[in-house]
Amino acid sequence: MQKIVSLCKRRGFVFQSSEIYGGLKSAYDYGPLGAELKRNLMTEWWTDMVHRRENVVGLDASIIMHPRVWEASGHLAGFSDPLVDCKVCKERFRADNAPRAEEGADATLRFPDKGAAKAALTQLTEQLGVTAERRGKEIVGLKAGAAGYVCPNCGSPFLSDERQFNLMFKSAIGATDPLGEVAAAIEAGKLEGLGGRELRTALEELTRPSAVYLRPETAQAMFVQFANVQQALALKVPFGIAQMGKSFRNEITVEHFIFRSCEFEQMEMEFFCEPGTDEEWADYWMNERMSWWRRYANAPDKFRFRAHEDAELAHYARGCSDIEFAYPWGWGELEGIANRTDYDLKKHAEASGSKLEYFDPVKQTKYTPFVIEPAAGATRGVLVYLIDAYHEEEVEGAKGKTETRVVLKLHPRLAPYKVAVLPLVKKEGMPEKARAVVDAFLQKGIAARYDEQHAIGRRYRRHDEIGTPYCLTIDGQTNEDDTITIRDRDTMEQRRISIDGAVAEVQKLLA
Amino acid sequence: MQKIVSLCKRRGFVFQSSEIYGGLKSAYDYGPLGAELKRNLMTEWWTDMVHRRENVVGLDASIIMHPRVWEASGHLAGFSDPLVDCKVCKERFRADNAPRAEEGADATLRFPDKGAAKAALTQLTEQLGVTAERRGKEIVGLKAGAAGYVCPNCGSPFLSDERQFNLMFKSAIGATDPLGEVAAAIEAGKLEGLGGRELRTALEELTRPSAVYLRPETAQAMFVQFANVQQALALKVPFGIAQMGKSFRNEITVEHFIFRSCEFEQMEMEFFCEPGTDEEWADYWMNERMSWWRRYANAPDKFRFRAHEDAELAHYARGCSDIEFAYPWGWGELEGIANRTDYDLKKHAEASGSKLEYFDPVKQTKYTPFVIEPAAGATRGVLVYLIDAYHEEEVEGAKGKTETRVVLKLHPRLAPYKVAVLPLVKKEGMPEKARAVVDAFLQKGIAARYDEQHAIGRRYRRHDEIGTPYCLTIDGQTNEDDTITIRDRDTMEQRRISIDGAVAEVQKLLA
Repeated sequence: MQKIVSLCKRRGFVFQSSEIYGGLKSAYDYGPLGAELKRNLMTEWWTDMVHRRENVVGLDASIIMHPRVWEASGHLAGFSDPLVDCKVCKERFRADNAPRAEEGADATLRFPDKGAAKAALTQLTEQLGVTAERRGKEIVGLKAGAAGYVCPNCGSPFLSDERQFNLMFKSAIGATDPLGEVAAAIEAGKLEGLGGRELRTALEELTRPSAVYLRPETAQAMFVQFANVQQALALKVPFGIAQMGKSFRNEITVEHFIFRSCEFEQMEMEFFCEPGTDEEWADYWMNERMSWWRRYANAPDKFRFRAHEDAELAHYARGCSDIEFAYPWGWGELEGIANRTDYDLKKHAEASGSKLEYFDPVKQTKYTPFVIEPAAGATRGVLVYLIDAYHEEEVEGAKGKTETRVVLKLHPRLAPYKVAVLPLVKKEGMPEKARAVVDAFLQKGIAARYDEQHAIGRRYRRHDEIGTPYCLTIDGQTNEDDTITIRDRDTMEQRRISIDGAVAEVQKLLA
Repeated sequence: MQKIVSLCKRRGFVFQSSEIYGGLKSAYDYGPLGAELKRNLMTEWWTDMVHRRENVVGLDASIIMHPRVWEASGHLAGFSDPLVDCKVCKERFRADNAPRAEEGADATLRFPDKGAAKAALTQLTEQLGVTAERRGKEIVGLKAGAAGYVCPNCGSPFLSDERQFNLMFKSAIGATDPLGEVAAAIEAGKLEGLGGRELRTALEELTRPSAVYLRPETAQAMFVQFANVQQALALKVPFGIAQMGKSFRNEITVEHFIFRSCEFEQMEMEFFCEPGTDEEWADYWMNERMSWWRRYANAPDKFRFRAHEDAELAHYARGCSDIEFAYPWGWGELEGIANRTDYDLKKHAEASGSKLEYFDPVKQTKYTPFVIEPAAGATRGVLVYLIDAYHEEEVEGAKGKTETRVVLKLHPRLAPYKVAVLPLVKKEGMPEKARAVVDAFLQKGIAARYDEQHAIGRRYRRHDEIGTPYCLTIDGQTNEDDTITIRDRDTMEQRRISIDGAVAEVQKLLA
């Protein structure tokens, strides 16, 4: 992993954000090559999800949405309350509403089924180092801690500290000055006599009128704009709305380079279907998405499905399957395909007073569609394919010595450049010929790069390291017979082709 | 303009953000067609600026950057101060530092040259309805107002109200609770006895440790990552770093639909060149950028240059020319091409302690490059081409009656769909044939859409309204001789072509 992070910086894939200022925790900048790789990946997704499908359309919504969106979606719930995370079932809950349990009292953990209880017991043992006993759906033999309460979801006493916390980034909009409001209230004596939670709530109220939030997921815009999109394009259920873009979560735990960061990119699609057809569509999208991820991979077996245990499921979801990847630190999430039921549309209809239903013109019935959501991490996808592509090989180098070749075996559709065009030397008209070849590729929309810096061997190694599938070299023989060499990144084999046929040859290889 | 806004909603180009919740001021969502139009525009820019140029590379940086970036860039200056805008020269300044002038005292406005004074006088008369007299570089005959001060830049007494204001959106990062810090300070009595500016500053200090800001421009990342990018790609000056993406400004005045909004997209490039060559490069980029904008327009004469008056120039800029467009409400900015000198690199070098210089290997000298910045509005570009494309025509309709045809004459490279494929009726195998044609286009990466809804005449009108350049229709004759009709959006002429040659025919027309 350290080698990949180092390659990313050295070759201009990924830099730490604001590095000259010591860096910003968990924010990354995509350099010249990373920007191309990410663009290519996201373009592949958009082409496959939107352009190739009659029944899916795109959306590109604002990052700052109306705060009531987050009230209705549940993202704002408890936003001025002390929050606690359960270390067993991962529930984040309000401490003040949690079931009371005196320190030392028996704490029984309850799960919806035996499978969930088994999974929790394993986790208790392996991750928290706790010994306990399972009896059917319950785990017994544990005691409540000093907090005085247990998890409202599973009953666990293994909890984080309390904190005033919401995962959304909060800001303020308009010609407003939230701290000015606070200062005015203090000067007017309006906060006198308040303390603890009352004071904290009063401060929240003072800043509420101008409060806005950065979206923590792209999905909500598809629910909020459901009726506008459906009507503008006269779409018939089943249909999908897809969106790619930045989301922001004020994550406490950031880890593994770009795997989990506060600012990240998503590729999400909400597929609206008739209730009763939802499980079939969930299966369909699971297969579509898995085959998409595997299509660009060297090691397709490093992707797998993992169905969520009932205990893990969001309260609105009927089912969810993750597509996981075998990261260097173990299996981890890459995409989730969730059956969100009609939860979101109903919540927004209720909160906004708008009708978010569909009238089926054939069956003459009206209903709230169910939603299947394939939600993928674009940033995570970049990491996955960098890991999948990274290879080190022992090859014969100069003077017969063995040296290590680093090669990024990126799928050609993802590679930042498809072709590098290299004049063997910077004279004898070679640079001019090489530039003409580059132009011919660009005319066909194929990313090609001219490169004349350093000896030819070093240039080949550099393009191996950044994943360029083909190097074309203009050499002395080109002047004689109008041929150039084409070198394959993976096999390192070279052969001569006609300079005029170079574009067609590479097009054939890429197809 | 109202017609364009209405078309945008009706056909799914642009919706108001969070519309079902009453909308969020000045935020917009791009619907299925608007998302494609914006993508196409930005892809054209990226292709022209990055892919087609050997000496320009891309960058895709985080929106939340280290707060010290904004300290060094000057964007944070005066962020806890009462700010005032001058209505004449647009300077935003600190009221407490402004030159004092008692109410009713003579106020003389001073400009660097006669041209600037003339422009200001026109503005005073036309926009503020004020009568005054110009004497050379000065404007006389005006009196100071109740504020007690005048503009430090031009001396004008025409000022906005004071407000605590910064154009950047502020947020907080980390497991932190800024209002909790304020509450704790109040409870601990730390704010007692403070009032006015002291209190406001104390509150600012309490929230400072976790404060972060949404970028108000994409440009700063190119300065901050200058050394990383230059070294990773071994770039030689002159070279450019280009970036597209969202920026955020808490604008007080939002207007004209998507022309000025708080969340918007930019396409910016910083071109680093040797001092002394900067004016030449500024000319080069002005011409490049103007010809790019005109390339996609029906009315190229609606774009013009406007050089900034000295009074308008940012303090660091040696010169700036806007590319303006003739909007329905008058000429207005679309892109600015500024000579930013070595201001930004030097400021960041000083603030960070990093070397942001370039060593010229040929001349064996070291220097801080000058920067030419073509900074374009992507969101504004979408608006410009919608306005340029919108046409109403009187045509002969059903039963010989005259009707109005609305047609978006979008450049084919910008049009959301290049081709619509329409089965005349939903039987006789026509839908199957139409879908096969759509697939053939998608295989070649050409955006094609299958459309079978409503009578053929309505379908043609619908595709006129969304700017689809070509409609292909499968009809009864197709079954007999394998030909289909191709209809041109602008001329409405139809002719028959072979179904197998359809892709090649359209490729020829688009080229």
